[in-house]
Amino acid sequence: MSRFFSDRHRELKAYTPGEQPKLSRLIKLNTNESPFPPAEGVAERVREEAARLNLYSDPESSALREILARKLGLAPENLIMTNGSDEALNFAFMAFCDEGCPAVFPDITYGFYPVFARINRVPFREIPLREDWTVPLPEFRSCGGTVFLANPNAPTGLALGLEEVEEILRAHPDHVVVVDEAYVDFGAESAVSLIDRYENLLVVQTFSKSRSLAGLRLGFAAGNGELIRDLRTMQYSTNPYNVDRLAQAAGIACLEREEENLRRVGVIRENREWTRGKLRDRGFEITDSRANFLFVRHPALRGSALRDQLRQRGILIRWFDQERIRDWSRISIGTREQMEALIEAVDGILKA
Amino acid sequence: MSRFFSDRHRELKAYTPGEQPKLSRLIKLNTNESPFPPAEGVAERVREEAARLNLYSDPESSALREILARKLGLAPENLIMTNGSDEALNFAFMAFCDEGCPAVFPDITYGFYPVFARINRVPFREIPLREDWTVPLPEFRSCGGTVFLANPNAPTGLALGLEEVEEILRAHPDHVVVVDEAYVDFGAESAVSLIDRYENLLVVQTFSKSRSLAGLRLGFAAGNGELIRDLRTMQYSTNPYNVDRLAQAAGIACLEREEENLRRVGVIRENREWTRGKLRDRGFEITDSRANFLFVRHPALRGSALRDQLRQRGILIRWFDQERIRDWSRISIGTREQMEALIEAVDGILKA
Repeated sequence: MSRFFSDRHRELKAYTPGEQPKLSRLIKLNTNESPFPPAEGVAERVREEAARLNLYSDPESSALREILARKLGLAPENLIMTNGSDEALNFAFMAFCDEGCPAVFPDITYGFYPVFARINRVPFREIPLREDWTVPLPEFRSCGGTVFLANPNAPTGLALGLEEVEEILRAHPDHVVVVDEAYVDFGAESAVSLIDRYENLLVVQTFSKSRSLAGLRLGFAAGNGELIRDLRTMQYSTNPYNVDRLAQAAGIACLEREEENLRRVGVIRENREWTRGKLRDRGFEITDSRANFLFVRHPALRGSALRDQLRQRGILIRWFDQERIRDWSRISIGTREQMEALIEAVDGILKA
Repeated sequence: MSRFFSDRHRELKAYTPGEQPKLSRLIKLNTNESPFPPAEGVAERVREEAARLNLYSDPESSALREILARKLGLAPENLIMTNGSDEALNFAFMAFCDEGCPAVFPDITYGFYPVFARINRVPFREIPLREDWTVPLPEFRSCGGTVFLANPNAPTGLALGLEEVEEILRAHPDHVVVVDEAYVDFGAESAVSLIDRYENLLVVQTFSKSRSLAGLRLGFAAGNGELIRDLRTMQYSTNPYNVDRLAQAAGIACLEREEENLRRVGVIRENREWTRGKLRDRGFEITDSRANFLFVRHPALRGSALRDQLRQRGILIRWFDQERIRDWSRISIGTREQMEALIEAVDGILKA
């Protein structure tokens, strides 16, 4: 830290992204990426668009929003495209939280929420998940702040049903409820269908996971037009051209091949269930994950030990040095071959 | 504004980007873009990289930083790549300004500075430029805050010499001085050469202008390792994967063709001087711009009138509805053909 660094941030602990290894021989099951390249057509589209990179992008991503809105059954003004869903979340912390309106989220959830709260100097409250990692709805019903709920949650993978989301929405008519659906396509119900009925609902999604565009930073928020305008004020106050030309072009190309994305999501779900069975056979405890990862614990192996020993065998998984979940590990779902290699490595570790 | 919008931002006036017209027949001289497509090789490189978009980008842009550092005579730890130079500027407002350390900048400069200050709830002070738009150095020497100086300045185009920048650096040993060099390649001296000697110097540059990548969002900050680490804390607290895979790949491809970029910068400078002569012949007052735009005023035409009448003739320029410069217009420098069309349109307007 330099001596010029503002005292404001002395207590800040930045987010730690999962390792991005330089060695491509490693099997990467640590950051919930898709094991598949993006839909066909993306590469060609970005090559074409590159000729126009001397011109700024459309700050409103109009063409992309129009196609996405149609797909979601919304109007374009219900959508704002963002530089990854992280930016949409950050904008929501900026726009809808302050000293009088804390952020409220579970104690075990996406590790970026407390970072967003601190960097925006917003008070926050973490509500403990139950022992089985389910959300204690009654406590969220009366929390008095802007609610952030990942659905499915990470790293637990557990999903809320829409009626549960509605319960929280109805309990907070005067606060925004942000439903972070980064993993929704892998097996949970999207709250997008509720936007017409709840003016306090903001849904955040990403093209990173189910659409194989983690490397491109494309996400969006969906909600009623006024909420979206508030987020756009945040965009125009930080980085108006937040979504670049290639991201807009690739997003459009991707949406034109939704069947391809859906087919791959299907493969990942199959691989998830295959892996779940194999790990259960080997004595692992596993949550009912609806996401593209499993949250697992073995009675004979601490989470960090499993992480270290898998790494020695060339496989990266994610372990969080955090109270309550130190015995657990998060394993992203890859191709069948990658998951077979995982099971083989686990067998080696358990035998040793 | 929704009823959920934080009171924090009630006074916020977001930045207004220049118009991005849907009609491609218009001649766009309003946002200081390059009229040339990016260097050869960029298109092919992003097509190749698209196959890996399922994986997150390297949050530290290591490969790109290494090449750029070599080019600038710096070490990689002296650099942070950002999502456009706007993000680098925003990070600097976040990291180096607070209640006790206001931001200080000229009254006539990049319109985003006051927006960054407000969104980060940082007090700021605007020091009036002199009547001839030069920077009153004595007032900056004793201003007691984090200084933001665009060099060349926008929209005036005037540049400070390095000895003037050093004067300000020496006068502020306990404050960061941010030199925003978005336009430096078109005719000013970069302060990058001073980084070794001034621990309080942060230089910000962009690939948007001289490297024809406005549509891609790629910028960087250069400074001593500690300042850069502070900015990286901001990155990791807002958007760790701020520079996507395609931007990193395109940036590398661009740096491999620097002669091509330099040649185009030469053409733009020639076109600037050609245009300057033609406009002067027609009675325009013109500042000594060292950037890829001219800042002009005509005794018989208000700035907004010139803007409106050029628009009717299919040419966009930038006019700022701001005290002191309402009579002026900013005209980006395009190809020779575009500048000839501008002069022809101006002749039409002056005759009418």
